Amino acid sequence: MRVPGFKFAGVACGIKKSRRKDLAFILSERPATAAALFTTNWVRAAPVIVGMRRMRRGLIQAVVINSGVANACTGAQGVRDAETTCRETALRLDIDPGLVLPSSTGLIGLPLPMDKILSGIEKAAAVLSDGSFFQAARAILTTDRFIKTASASCRLAGKQVVVAGMAKGAGMIAPKVATMLAYILTDAAVEPRCLRAILRNAAAKTFNAVTVDGDMSTNDTVLFLANGVAGNPPVRSGSREEEVLLNVVKELMGSLALKLVEDGEGATKVVEVRVQGSRSSAEARKIAYTVATSQLVKAAFFGEDPNYGRIMAAIGRAEVPIKPERVDVSFDGVTVVKRGVGVNSTEQEAARVLKQPSFSVRIHLRQGKASASVWTSDLSHEYVRINSAYRT
Amino acid sequence: MRVPGFKFAGVACGIKKSRRKDLAFILSERPATAAALFTTNWVRAAPVIVGMRRMRRGLIQAVVINSGVANACTGAQGVRDAETTCRETALRLDIDPGLVLPSSTGLIGLPLPMDKILSGIEKAAAVLSDGSFFQAARAILTTDRFIKTASASCRLAGKQVVVAGMAKGAGMIAPKVATMLAYILTDAAVEPRCLRAILRNAAAKTFNAVTVDGDMSTNDTVLFLANGVAGNPPVRSGSREEEVLLNVVKELMGSLALKLVEDGEGATKVVEVRVQGSRSSAEARKIAYTVATSQLVKAAFFGEDPNYGRIMAAIGRAEVPIKPERVDVSFDGVTVVKRGVGVNSTEQEAARVLKQPSFSVRIHLRQGKASASVWTSDLSHEYVRINSAYRT
Repeated sequence: MRVPGFKFAGVACGIKKSRRKDLAFILSERPATAAALFTTNWVRAAPVIVGMRRMRRGLIQAVVINSGVANACTGAQGVRDAETTCRETALRLDIDPGLVLPSSTGLIGLPLPMDKILSGIEKAAAVLSDGSFFQAARAILTTDRFIKTASASCRLAGKQVVVAGMAKGAGMIAPKVATMLAYILTDAAVEPRCLRAILRNAAAKTFNAVTVDGDMSTNDTVLFLANGVAGNPPVRSGSREEEVLLNVVKELMGSLALKLVEDGEGATKVVEVRVQGSRSSAEARKIAYTVATSQLVKAAFFGEDPNYGRIMAAIGRAEVPIKPERVDVSFDGVTVVKRGVGVNSTEQEAARVLKQPSFSVRIHLRQGKASASVWTSDLSHEYVRINSAYRT
Repeated sequence: MRVPGFKFAGVACGIKKSRRKDLAFILSERPATAAALFTTNWVRAAPVIVGMRRMRRGLIQAVVINSGVANACTGAQGVRDAETTCRETALRLDIDPGLVLPSSTGLIGLPLPMDKILSGIEKAAAVLSDGSFFQAARAILTTDRFIKTASASCRLAGKQVVVAGMAKGAGMIAPKVATMLAYILTDAAVEPRCLRAILRNAAAKTFNAVTVDGDMSTNDTVLFLANGVAGNPPVRSGSREEEVLLNVVKELMGSLALKLVEDGEGATKVVEVRVQGSRSSAEARKIAYTVATSQLVKAAFFGEDPNYGRIMAAIGRAEVPIKPERVDVSFDGVTVVKRGVGVNSTEQEAARVLKQPSFSVRIHLRQGKASASVWTSDLSHEYVRINSAYRT
């Protein structure tokens, strides 16, 4: 995969004991207009603190990402280490250090192993190329089982442009502003305000609508870079081009977000929880999220058990006033609760739906016209194995 | 265990396939002053709907409880079945049907098997005795591994009185008003308003401070009956006797609540999460609850992994403004985070603490003087096994 005007690198520098790739570069040939979403966790990792500072200028030329160590809960030393990482990267790439954004992912609490990071920066600078997109996408992974990338293209004011993205995330996935590391790159020119609007808008129904365990990381970053190499007139807010680009970006981010759920730690199922007939989309979302993160509901999905009682109990505790006697619940169209009452005649049919690797749970409240969807995975033995193993 | 003026029964009537006891009676020789807490779930089981009606009078003489089927999501028929259960119980016990409170626990969605219930009522009435407390305590269990009872006595205005309680609950345990079935009985005389105040006050730091999975049931009921057989002058609000009784009840309910956590589905650990130095106890509670229900934190407890990073990440997403650079975290006094920075030198010592069956996690925010505790269990393979098995 290639994005005009961007180069990539992904190398191993020994941060991960497994000797797998653990340091990545993304470099634009010129400073790119940038928009970003960061974790809303009050505990922010050092690279997030530094990244937020960088975003004030709204221009980014390079990203340096390491996996294996999150550089979170590392205090002032952590911030100094993140700054050093940017400075050394800028030096090797011969660019302004203020244009380098750092990202880290991995274990919280350990200091960045700076000797390894510095050797990694040297190594990455040496192999930087416009064909190394997948190497970079591999180097940002932690417990992920597969790389997550997506790409698309479209025409903007007569120019063909490319949009490509890479993401990482398998655990600590919860839908609040940003929930993983993700980098969306385009060679289109986009006005800064428009770029931010597209990112926010597209994230709402994609990265912010997935959950694996309801746990939110200290390091989440979604970065959107537009370097304008395609030569189109900058896309403006309210234009037809904005709409075209938004649709492409939303589709691309949706595809990445679903890959996060599919790769959820221990996941064997991808389930859409859709709430309809709500008074507001905020209420619909609150109910969908409560169902999608319920330990009991997720364990039932793993067991392929159409246990609608757990779904009803979760709906009822979402702190949204509902009328239980109006609620319908169905699995891929098979009704299991009708007007608040369990339908037991469809049990076998419902059990067949749950045997599939992917299905949807629809909840109809009959209180209004709003709706929302959240995508979730199941809770398996493998999840417990991965997350109870000493220092995963 | 005996409580003057109370009789009990626990029988098997075939609701549970296992042929274990599944129907219980609690009968007071005279109408008792009653206080109750019910689930705050919007989806209320039929016995909760009927029980709330009964509480308007503030007097209860008998409780009829069945396990195996929750009689939830059963619509108007479910309410009729709960009323029939009360009426038949009253008939067999020769008391006013308006003084009978019903409770059910078990699978949501199935109708009550009324033929079995009616034969159970007949059977229970025949074996009712003041020595059958433990039989009743056994008949209310579902996935519980052991019966949960506690008792105490104290002197009120020169009279010796007894307080005894039984509870059930292993899954669907979350701290919101009431979280399980529990029956607290005393032969003391207590004024209605005082009885309600004692129950509310005692529940706040006991039944409402435990969590197993964060899932809240549709059937939760905590009932407190005082039949006055001891002959003391009724305990009044604001009296010294109220204080004495409150302390006894709080201790007793605390002991029952801890037994719920100890018996949490698949639990291998009981962990106190204590938040100190908060601006308000509501904020302290919110953080303690977020940590105590985090899937990742609970999986780390199971793995005996002192992974303080997951605790910091959970603290930070509790939607309570904090200053991470002031936060300390310790395991039974072993500091793992100091002023927001991970302490890695204590790792082995911390790992030893986590090998114990019970320990405490203390979180100090240094923002104020309020505090709160939540008791939780770990997330084990056994939890997933129990809750993914088809129709547990």
